Amino acid sequence: MGLARKDLLGMRELTIDEIRLILDTAESMKEVAGRDIKKVPALRGKTLINLFYEPSTRTRTSFEIAGKWLSADVINVSTPSSSVAKGESLKDTGLTLQAMHPDIVVLRHPASGAAELLARQLTASVINAGDGAHEHPSQALLDLFTIREKKGRLEGLKAAIVGDITHSRVARSNIHGMQRMGMEVRVAGPRTMMPCFIDRLGVEVFTDLERAIADVDVIMMLRLQLERQQASLFPSLREYSRLFGLTLERLKAAKSDVLIMHPGPINRGVEIAPEVADGPYSLILNQVENGVAVRMALLYLLAGGGQAG
Amino acid sequence: MGLARKDLLGMRELTIDEIRLILDTAESMKEVAGRDIKKVPALRGKTLINLFYEPSTRTRTSFEIAGKWLSADVINVSTPSSSVAKGESLKDTGLTLQAMHPDIVVLRHPASGAAELLARQLTASVINAGDGAHEHPSQALLDLFTIREKKGRLEGLKAAIVGDITHSRVARSNIHGMQRMGMEVRVAGPRTMMPCFIDRLGVEVFTDLERAIADVDVIMMLRLQLERQQASLFPSLREYSRLFGLTLERLKAAKSDVLIMHPGPINRGVEIAPEVADGPYSLILNQVENGVAVRMALLYLLAGGGQAG
Amino acid sequence: MGLARKDLLGMRELTIDEIRLILDTAESMKEVAGRDIKKVPALRGKTLINLFYEPSTRTRTSFEIAGKWLSADVINVSTPSSSVAKGESLKDTGLTLQAMHPDIVVLRHPASGAAELLARQLTASVINAGDGAHEHPSQALLDLFTIREKKGRLEGLKAAIVGDITHSRVARSNIHGMQRMGMEVRVAGPRTMMPCFIDRLGVEVFTDLERAIADVDVIMMLRLQLERQQASLFPSLREYSRLFGLTLERLKAAKSDVLIMHPGPINRGVEIAPEVADGPYSLILNQVENGVAVRMALLYLLAGGGQAG
Repeated sequence: MGLARKDLLGMRELTIDEIRLILDTAESMKEVAGRDIKKVPALRGKTLINLFYEPSTRTRTSFEIAGKWLSADVINVSTPSSSVAKGESLKDTGLTLQAMHPDIVVLRHPASGAAELLARQLTASVINAGDGAHEHPSQALLDLFTIREKKGRLEGLKAAIVGDITHSRVARSNIHGMQRMGMEVRVAGPRTMMPCFIDRLGVEVFTDLERAIADVDVIMMLRLQLERQQASLFPSLREYSRLFGLTLERLKAAKSDVLIMHPGPINRGVEIAPEVADGPYSLILNQVENGVAVRMALLYLLAGGGQAG
Repeated sequence: MGLARKDLLGMRELTIDEIRLILDTAESMKEVAGRDIKKVPALRGKTLINLFYEPSTRTRTSFEIAGKWLSADVINVSTPSSSVAKGESLKDTGLTLQAMHPDIVVLRHPASGAAELLARQLTASVINAGDGAHEHPSQALLDLFTIREKKGRLEGLKAAIVGDITHSRVARSNIHGMQRMGMEVRVAGPRTMMPCFIDRLGVEVFTDLERAIADVDVIMMLRLQLERQQASLFPSLREYSRLFGLTLERLKAAKSDVLIMHPGPINRGVEIAPEVADGPYSLILNQVENGVAVRMALLYLLAGGGQAG
Repeated sequence: MGLARKDLLGMRELTIDEIRLILDTAESMKEVAGRDIKKVPALRGKTLINLFYEPSTRTRTSFEIAGKWLSADVINVSTPSSSVAKGESLKDTGLTLQAMHPDIVVLRHPASGAAELLARQLTASVINAGDGAHEHPSQALLDLFTIREKKGRLEGLKAAIVGDITHSRVARSNIHGMQRMGMEVRVAGPRTMMPCFIDRLGVEVFTDLERAIADVDVIMMLRLQLERQQASLFPSLREYSRLFGLTLERLKAAKSDVLIMHPGPINRGVEIAPEVADGPYSLILNQVENGVAVRMALLYLLAGGGQAG
């Protein structure tokens, strides 16, 4: 029926059966988005709080739409990062919100481990919508959903994740999720963007993009966080783009039916060329579309809703 | 029936019949606002995204209330102008939102033409809620509605629009709308605030306020954007106010039953004297009230809702 | 049945019977929060506008949840304090919002008297959610509700309010409310934080915390507004905390069943020690929980809703 857990904190903790349940539930939720009347009563009378300590349009909007289509009451609480320092601790904010009886709290926070900390305080379900460089499980689940939708399966597929692996919660969650589902994962990027514990993650490391993508089924490009340049992780945008940007030319090294993914927002012409982002094998918009369905599934499974309508 | 168009981008593109359909529909919507229970199921299961790249309380709130009274799900997405530069392009933001299956996107954006650009990308309906100095059609429609409500007709009436015509999307939309409905339009303001192509718009230009308002049925005062003073469009507030502020004294030059309009927010004592803004012929608050009704009509006609309740 | 008043501006204006009606109604509202389906149709088709000129997570969220559980349409309008100066006056903003036919406007504003000013302009009900250092009646009502819930009565109880009395709307509202309900109120804090008219409020003033709390039933600690230190109201955090912070040690001077309250957010280790805030007699989270119920009662009684479901 539902998930036998209160929270969704990371992909690392999910079993194969749990991931399958979520993806299967998302399939039926996706059908709702195609309807003329996009509304089911499953979470009527349930309250979802979106608690965002980092700005986010895409993820917050996706959870908000997911909640509203399921008839939940959705409350947005955005805390500008400036007030985090002087304000209440996450623990006290969590306890305060808890006292208002939400059923689910969706948390985005700049600190790794923030979601777990909150989950321990609350009886409400907590969904980690990104905690520092740690995990972003709903993103990995929508990525798995999208790959499975296109390829019909996950097991045995090969994926290359390209970019700043060290600072990417998307990479970390996908590595765990893909491996759990029987995929082989490799990573590619400059040495300065590889975490020191990378070998413990069971992935092969490439510093040459073309070799990394040569025989994979999925290429997942990460967003280059331009503010990292000041930290000297790469010498220049141009240099990064020349070595690790995915262009049509470079794509010739890959399989002809390779799937191109990106968590967005994309930097056109930096990590991905416009012709690739808009090309036939790009799944970038499918990812966004499936994001709503996957988040509906998560809300539904965690809030233990009744009929799905 | 419905409007035979996907988007509402400007007044310039609307036919007389379309404008009449919108105004007539708004009349029945206005009745809802007077009810004890302000709620009709017309847009249940439809999703409206308010995408605002400029701060706005009045227009955003008006669309949000209109959507909610029609039972739509309303999602607010505000992008602080600072993040526009570094962030995703409007096109990519639009495609991302599109993938979440909204039925209508209401866009406010500082660049002229932004709404048209977005409309071309999306299968969802786009309503232009102000694009740079170009158009703000829902404002012109609520102005026409308000004039028609008071005078019983539009054809043959004369209006004077007063202020910074160059930078006013309200002026531009009203000029197109009023002329389409058979009204005669003149504009008044300092030479520095008249667009160079003004004669092509078919309006008479006045630099003397009293002569401009002498025999009109409607005076529409524009908000003086105080930050323009730095651009040296006018020497001082006092100077502007002395020449183009609408006072009781100056109003003696106008017809005794002239209608006074202003899109708000007003600068009391600058372009309009408090006694005029709060006086018997001021329609400023009627405009706001009718704004909700007109926006309900637009949402209803574009989303092709079923019964209006 | 309902309250025989349009607005709730302060505790000072409420009669004993009105306070009892609100607290009794809140009791039945609290039952809704414990349900699996937290939704009653009482305010369906009613519109609530949260108009906040100061940042607030706790109070805004509490009113928003209260409104949504009662099925009202809730619109948030936040005006960053920077734009208050240059923007529309409160009066014009109020008249504009009024024209959109809200049933209730909840206002938070930095100026004392702002809610009363707004209430005079609007036919809609106005709830004061904090106006400068003046009043914050919904906070005092939830405090009274919480005390009554724990002690079974209000009359004859003694309370000590501790901290910066001069700048606290919470203190002011509680003094009026507690006295009206037959409680005896004393205040404690540094001389520099006592208003000069304090004796006119009918409270006893203490500058020694242990003497102040010696025989009271309720200790209400106020949040130390850290930015006041620059105004030299106290020499240092450490000094303030040493003299007026509530620690376990100091609590030995109080009754063994004393209730500990705080409007939040708390400064752990400043005005209240963590062991006290999280201890068995702390009602801090009960206050937050009851806040939703009390605000549901206020919305219900002021909007004159039909059945409460």
